[in-house]
Amino acid sequence: MEDREVLSKMNYPIYANVLMSVVSYFLTVRLIPKFRDMFIKGNLYGIDMNKKDGGKVPEALGVVTGCVFLITMFLFIPVPFTDYIFKNADFPHNEFVEMLAALLSICCMLLLGFADDVLDLRWRHKLLLPTIASLPLLMVYYVNFNSTLIIVPKPLRPWFGLSVDLWLLYYVYMGMLAVFCTNAINILAGVNGLEVGQSLVIAASISIFNLVELSGNVWKAHQFSLYFMLPYMATSLALFKHNWYPSQVFVGDTFCYLSGMTFAVVGILGHFSKTILLFFIPQIINFLYSIPQLFHLVPCPRHRLPRYNKETDKLDISVTVFKKSELNVLAKLCLWVFRTLKIVSWKEDKTGLVTCNNLTLINFILYMIGPTSEPSLTIILILIQIMSSVLAFMIRYPLASVFYDI
Amino acid sequence: MEDREVLSKMNYPIYANVLMSVVSYFLTVRLIPKFRDMFIKGNLYGIDMNKKDGGKVPEALGVVTGCVFLITMFLFIPVPFTDYIFKNADFPHNEFVEMLAALLSICCMLLLGFADDVLDLRWRHKLLLPTIASLPLLMVYYVNFNSTLIIVPKPLRPWFGLSVDLWLLYYVYMGMLAVFCTNAINILAGVNGLEVGQSLVIAASISIFNLVELSGNVWKAHQFSLYFMLPYMATSLALFKHNWYPSQVFVGDTFCYLSGMTFAVVGILGHFSKTILLFFIPQIINFLYSIPQLFHLVPCPRHRLPRYNKETDKLDISVTVFKKSELNVLAKLCLWVFRTLKIVSWKEDKTGLVTCNNLTLINFILYMIGPTSEPSLTIILILIQIMSSVLAFMIRYPLASVFYDI
Repeated sequence: MEDREVLSKMNYPIYANVLMSVVSYFLTVRLIPKFRDMFIKGNLYGIDMNKKDGGKVPEALGVVTGCVFLITMFLFIPVPFTDYIFKNADFPHNEFVEMLAALLSICCMLLLGFADDVLDLRWRHKLLLPTIASLPLLMVYYVNFNSTLIIVPKPLRPWFGLSVDLWLLYYVYMGMLAVFCTNAINILAGVNGLEVGQSLVIAASISIFNLVELSGNVWKAHQFSLYFMLPYMATSLALFKHNWYPSQVFVGDTFCYLSGMTFAVVGILGHFSKTILLFFIPQIINFLYSIPQLFHLVPCPRHRLPRYNKETDKLDISVTVFKKSELNVLAKLCLWVFRTLKIVSWKEDKTGLVTCNNLTLINFILYMIGPTSEPSLTIILILIQIMSSVLAFMIRYPLASVFYDI
Repeated sequence: MEDREVLSKMNYPIYANVLMSVVSYFLTVRLIPKFRDMFIKGNLYGIDMNKKDGGKVPEALGVVTGCVFLITMFLFIPVPFTDYIFKNADFPHNEFVEMLAALLSICCMLLLGFADDVLDLRWRHKLLLPTIASLPLLMVYYVNFNSTLIIVPKPLRPWFGLSVDLWLLYYVYMGMLAVFCTNAINILAGVNGLEVGQSLVIAASISIFNLVELSGNVWKAHQFSLYFMLPYMATSLALFKHNWYPSQVFVGDTFCYLSGMTFAVVGILGHFSKTILLFFIPQIINFLYSIPQLFHLVPCPRHRLPRYNKETDKLDISVTVFKKSELNVLAKLCLWVFRTLKIVSWKEDKTGLVTCNNLTLINFILYMIGPTSEPSLTIILILIQIMSSVLAFMIRYPLASVFYDI
């Protein structure tokens, strides 16, 4: 019966969306190579540091997939509303508003990402601008739902009761979600295909979650999320084809910001802004592990990519070097924890000079398994992302019943 | 009485908007110099060809004013709705939708403009993308108003009746308006301060028109337009300060697209999509005059800027050279008309080789008044824009009563 229910909600807008996504995939696959020279001419290129012969690779191609994604969505906008348009029924302005606010936030981040690739923005911009870009989204959430109640897990109920109304805090959380998502993918990057690969796994996980929840009470919200996820996946898959090892194009901060904001948007307007974090487990681990360098407790070089060994054609950990005595208390505490857990490579000479791997998940994996070729490393990292999603579904479904009455 | 009516509609959202605009002016004035080096480092600069010592001038600073403009509007969004929010009245989703669609279209064009400055897009993109960017706008127009009736001027009524319903044609017109506005400012450019100068005159004219119409029946639409025009003018004025002769920064296609789309947006959603064209008289003349070159009937060099004379520090017409015998019939006809009207500089040698000024309004003015210094030329062009606006108001108000019953 559930299956039939799901099918009944797979109505013509979804089919139209699937069709448009397929078209956008083929369009993007063909478009990307055409823009190669234009990007290189516009000084938008990078040198692939993990290759023997580092040629110019066009950078920030995420702007092409982003534009095709937006165009697809623009053309799709009227589709879910055709019933209302032709039958002259009361137009559901509240649903229309959600769509426009979502596209506005995504478009803003595409612009910001592209500006970052061209201009190398500062960190304060990277934190401030996504917050502002999410304002229309929060306003729509306020106007349409304004439900800031969260259900308390069973073990905590003696203290907090059945539910807690977070009020303003819930909006702060959603604003921070936008900032986190946009930056989290951007800092788990640096080997061919990883940015798009992880984003595709996250998008696929969200889509599976949406499909499952189509049989639930809030199916409309999940349908809304699918409208965005399918064309997003189609255009990203096209980019993946050109970005996979050896990369013909780089995706740029543009793609990472676009992806992060798209996920935040569907999470917020699809009412699963807590569940969505479950699909970001590797990104959260990478963020936590990076904290000492992100907050400059430990010296952080401009790039924290793995180090390429020309002889073996393999990648190994890249390192940061510092005097132990120059660290502050907080840095010492963080590193003590990491060393106790044995999750850092640590070499200290007699003078107190420490050589430690750059604190990224990528370097951690290399530290664990030793030098690895670039495509193998990417595959391992994508597999970790997939495993995390499996874990996420286990937490969301079987385990949730332990903590909630469902 | 009318004055009092106008005042009563100058309510707190307008005052808040004025205040925010003032802040955004000072913010933009301070921000622009800070971004100078970042733009030059990002290879976004041009050489000022009309100066003796052409140094690097950062290009595409329109993206900074555009972002401040958008941020101001994002922060302003809730202001007109506070009444509804706090009184828990029925939320006017239809008005909210207009605001979001307007910002979405503007944001898209800001992205496209910036991409054009970085990547040098092709003409087909410049025509296709604004059309797509205006789709959400047209959808909102359809959903909220869908009035495609136009009143026929008196002399034509025997043939067409009192009014004609243009249906789909009206939407085609509005889509084309977006394309025209975004490109029209971009092709009347090339001397320091002209792009921002003309845009400021157009924006001021629209604002005056809005203020006058605040006493009318559709005052809400004109109030909506003012919400956008005031912060737009504030941020543009800040840009003008840095872009005036001798330019410290260039505005880029970014600014032209941003401006054009902002005007198209308020014209369409403010229900004055016909009146707004009256404020584009110089742009229309420039476009008509440019047609032989835009459609490549006559050879069109990459830049059609006036020619700078280092000795005199003055600007003179720039020229295009072609064999008369190689022109097709259409080109010959156009040029015959121009020569008959004596609006082109035309030199033909015995072999049939023609030297003719590049067909822009700027070159036409130089042809009429002879070599001129750059700031004087800009002032003359801005004065022409102001005169055209005076003419526009005369057509819109005293003259309109001849053709319509008002």
